[in-house]
Amino acid sequence: MCRWLAYSGTPVLLENMLYRPQHSLIDQSLHARMGVETTNGDGFGVGWYRTAEDSPAIVREIGPAWSNRNLREIAGHVRSHLFFAHIRASTGSAVQQTNCHPFRHGRWMWMHNGAIAEFSRVRRDLVLAVDPDLFLHIEGSTDSEVMFYLALTFGLEDDPPGAVARMAGLVEGVGREHGVEHPLQMTVAVTDGRSLWTFRYSSQRASRSLFYSTRVETLRSLHPDIDFLREASDDTRLVVSEPLGDLPGVWNEVPESTYGVVRPEGDEMVPFEPVAP
Amino acid sequence: MCRWLAYSGTPVLLENMLYRPQHSLIDQSLHARMGVETTNGDGFGVGWYRTAEDSPAIVREIGPAWSNRNLREIAGHVRSHLFFAHIRASTGSAVQQTNCHPFRHGRWMWMHNGAIAEFSRVRRDLVLAVDPDLFLHIEGSTDSEVMFYLALTFGLEDDPPGAVARMAGLVEGVGREHGVEHPLQMTVAVTDGRSLWTFRYSSQRASRSLFYSTRVETLRSLHPDIDFLREASDDTRLVVSEPLGDLPGVWNEVPESTYGVVRPEGDEMVPFEPVAP
Amino acid sequence: MCRWLAYSGTPVLLENMLYRPQHSLIDQSLHARMGVETTNGDGFGVGWYRTAEDSPAIVREIGPAWSNRNLREIAGHVRSHLFFAHIRASTGSAVQQTNCHPFRHGRWMWMHNGAIAEFSRVRRDLVLAVDPDLFLHIEGSTDSEVMFYLALTFGLEDDPPGAVARMAGLVEGVGREHGVEHPLQMTVAVTDGRSLWTFRYSSQRASRSLFYSTRVETLRSLHPDIDFLREASDDTRLVVSEPLGDLPGVWNEVPESTYGVVRPEGDEMVPFEPVAP
Amino acid sequence: MCRWLAYSGTPVLLENMLYRPQHSLIDQSLHARMGVETTNGDGFGVGWYRTAEDSPAIVREIGPAWSNRNLREIAGHVRSHLFFAHIRASTGSAVQQTNCHPFRHGRWMWMHNGAIAEFSRVRRDLVLAVDPDLFLHIEGSTDSEVMFYLALTFGLEDDPPGAVARMAGLVEGVGREHGVEHPLQMTVAVTDGRSLWTFRYSSQRASRSLFYSTRVETLRSLHPDIDFLREASDDTRLVVSEPLGDLPGVWNEVPESTYGVVRPEGDEMVPFEPVAP
Repeated sequence: MCRWLAYSGTPVLLENMLYRPQHSLIDQSLHARMGVETTNGDGFGVGWYRTAEDSPAIVREIGPAWSNRNLREIAGHVRSHLFFAHIRASTGSAVQQTNCHPFRHGRWMWMHNGAIAEFSRVRRDLVLAVDPDLFLHIEGSTDSEVMFYLALTFGLEDDPPGAVARMAGLVEGVGREHGVEHPLQMTVAVTDGRSLWTFRYSSQRASRSLFYSTRVETLRSLHPDIDFLREASDDTRLVVSEPLGDLPGVWNEVPESTYGVVRPEGDEMVPFEPVAP
Repeated sequence: MCRWLAYSGTPVLLENMLYRPQHSLIDQSLHARMGVETTNGDGFGVGWYRTAEDSPAIVREIGPAWSNRNLREIAGHVRSHLFFAHIRASTGSAVQQTNCHPFRHGRWMWMHNGAIAEFSRVRRDLVLAVDPDLFLHIEGSTDSEVMFYLALTFGLEDDPPGAVARMAGLVEGVGREHGVEHPLQMTVAVTDGRSLWTFRYSSQRASRSLFYSTRVETLRSLHPDIDFLREASDDTRLVVSEPLGDLPGVWNEVPESTYGVVRPEGDEMVPFEPVAP
Repeated sequence: MCRWLAYSGTPVLLENMLYRPQHSLIDQSLHARMGVETTNGDGFGVGWYRTAEDSPAIVREIGPAWSNRNLREIAGHVRSHLFFAHIRASTGSAVQQTNCHPFRHGRWMWMHNGAIAEFSRVRRDLVLAVDPDLFLHIEGSTDSEVMFYLALTFGLEDDPPGAVARMAGLVEGVGREHGVEHPLQMTVAVTDGRSLWTFRYSSQRASRSLFYSTRVETLRSLHPDIDFLREASDDTRLVVSEPLGDLPGVWNEVPESTYGVVRPEGDEMVPFEPVAP
Repeated sequence: MCRWLAYSGTPVLLENMLYRPQHSLIDQSLHARMGVETTNGDGFGVGWYRTAEDSPAIVREIGPAWSNRNLREIAGHVRSHLFFAHIRASTGSAVQQTNCHPFRHGRWMWMHNGAIAEFSRVRRDLVLAVDPDLFLHIEGSTDSEVMFYLALTFGLEDDPPGAVARMAGLVEGVGREHGVEHPLQMTVAVTDGRSLWTFRYSSQRASRSLFYSTRVETLRSLHPDIDFLREASDDTRLVVSEPLGDLPGVWNEVPESTYGVVRPEGDEMVPFEPVAP
């Protein structure tokens, strides 16, 4: 599977979140603790917004993150208020740039950990459900990219939670038609550069791990010695596949079958349930 | 576009055909003379049969052929009776291994120079025509790979010329439904490890260049000083996008709208016409 | 050989200089007009300063620039007041990241077009002249990197023109000891993030091409319709291996055996002569 | 550190040794048991002889072995009587092809697991001891390649054990001059295509693991059900960083400070001691 990190808040150099924490995402590329695989070396990607008005930049590579010098350079010199990072452990599909996360469509970014079960059997039916005008933008061969284009087909740009629920409903429906018992396993992050939605769900209600950081004002009182927290705005949040360290009080598990929204006007956590599209 | 070379005959080290000729395929990767582009630096591939019974080995890379050390090593140490080599100039689709030629399915290899016009508009309809059991083997995003899987869908393994004619007929039909004036441009090589079929065709009857080598017994009398010709079997043939040198009497243009077969029981050249599938 | 571009002035998105001009550096990677080779596909690099106080970021890759999606992304989202870009045509040394330009040492960046003649014969003597504490930072196998470390050895950080003159003097001296007639061919750019020095020199006084852009206030009156010029500060300059377009009055050849300085307190052009170190 | 495998004996497809064993070298690239690191994902290489008269072919890549499709293809279609395979875990030097093992000089191949302690401090002195005519062939930045060129300098082609002893003596001498307590840690394999020498040594007499396979005639009686053993010649041997499986009686540890020779005229195991060059 994979590991990912989504950051929203006070603009920071990417390296502050990608390299500096004790159990950083880069460290997880070699030594993940909670993943199905400890090594996530089949490509990586970062996506960041320069301004809230721009499309995001997406840099993706097929080698391991831990030894990639360009990622180190970018992380040390690019500052952003909202960015995604993803490290990949392929479960069989080709190790190629177009299979690396995050995926982008216009202003939107998407990344995923998990899998559509028996994807090769259901792939054709799922791809056929993608809007023909969107279909031509599919470049890779992953389940994750198809999930993104299904969500776009089902209205992601207007109603992210609804579109993801319809995507999940379709995946479960098609899977079950093909006799798949547990069709979907996912943690997903999606953003338009302003708000961040994260989802934790799986058909068997045993989803991959997902954590979000405690509110900054609480963290400040818990850890008055951490410089970054003094500068961080109150709405700064991290959502991650696994905690970036062992500091007490920082990391909270996203409940099973739940999605969260992080946005300037306030955060929210809501139960998530697939619906038939 | 691209350049390719197909060899069938006396087993030779690949380098004899890929590196040694004056205007070799590797030279063409930097300095093609007859292509739409002079540079073919967006990936390459070689495929070879170790024995006539095996599936072929396929080695593909995304960098330019001219500087690839591994290709040089393989070419200098692998000997084969039937091999393909291809250098790619992308017309937009991603530079990734799964978009490099040759493509393989079981014992079969396929490579292509040319394009399906306005592929992004017709891609969905073409992909839908691929047999669902074959669909799941499509890994890349090129027109060339879809052409291969269409030909397989239409019986390539039983009747290569017929299957390619039906593939071409479908591509032209779908293209014209979408208002494309000249839907198909192709030179194609396909083999099962024993026979080699090559096709030259385009909807506007102005196809990319394709050449085949003169019969070895004729070449021997023309060029008695060339060592290789003394050892080469009579059925040895090269089919290439453009001649590998300027030696008189060696290279013959494949006529427009024609296919050829190279096989132990004798070669043949036949008019080619698409048919509705 | 290679092609390069150095920009200093009003902060701009890199793509404005790398992709947008008619005969941009990316276009030159496929179609250089004035180089020894028309194709510069053996790797590339960009280096930029985020602030005048930082070390530069350096992103280098071994594939061709023309098809590199990450370069496109970075160029479209990174803004800088001083940046270098380089496209490489290897003359034999390995195509690897550590052989791509620009090279960095602390706050300093260096890039080069040209060659030390018969480098393999003189390499050992040149490398021995590098300060032992600097020697351990040499990572690649190019003449260009050795030239940089020699210049650092000879005081680049205090007196760039003097240090480059001593480096050139050493290269010519060692070359002549080995019977090399014309030991050095170079255009070089070097910067500390504040000032930019560029050099055009060759032992036979027939140096690779080098051009600098006309003063912005002159350009504004010549081309009142170009938006960028209205925003560009008066001290904005480009120095390039070959002009980025055919606009009259924009490009001026750097004279043979000359170096230039671009810096906030005023530009300067000075004759250049190697000196024995 | 790294893991490696050396095979000498009955010609086999490389995949029989690289992919098929239960704890194969490819498996070790993700899950090494006895290495300092469990992941060896910083490049790999294979080198093989087509005939005993040829120079070996060397194919090296910078990504992980576990996901490399070209390695899988080559291993499935290339047959050799003597081959090396190596997977790399970089301890800091660049991940680039010229740093991947095996290294080649003429007919000779070399690979290494271990390190020269504090290599950056002693590198210059060691490189200076390389014969100037050999120096120009050094392409990468690893300690392993310098060890190879030192051994060549000290007569590897005439007396491999003596040359390796002098190389080790020099490394220890230079290291101690620089105040390094334990200068050398190595398991090394070297071959000329006919004989295979393997060394296990470290300055502190606590060397990385190294194992050799039991004589084929003994294995045949232990495991009469294994097909390969029926066809394998009596002189077939594997030497590996760690056992390829748990089959009883197959793997024997090379003793500390020992070298072995595998060759047609009989194998031998001899104590190894560095000597001053």
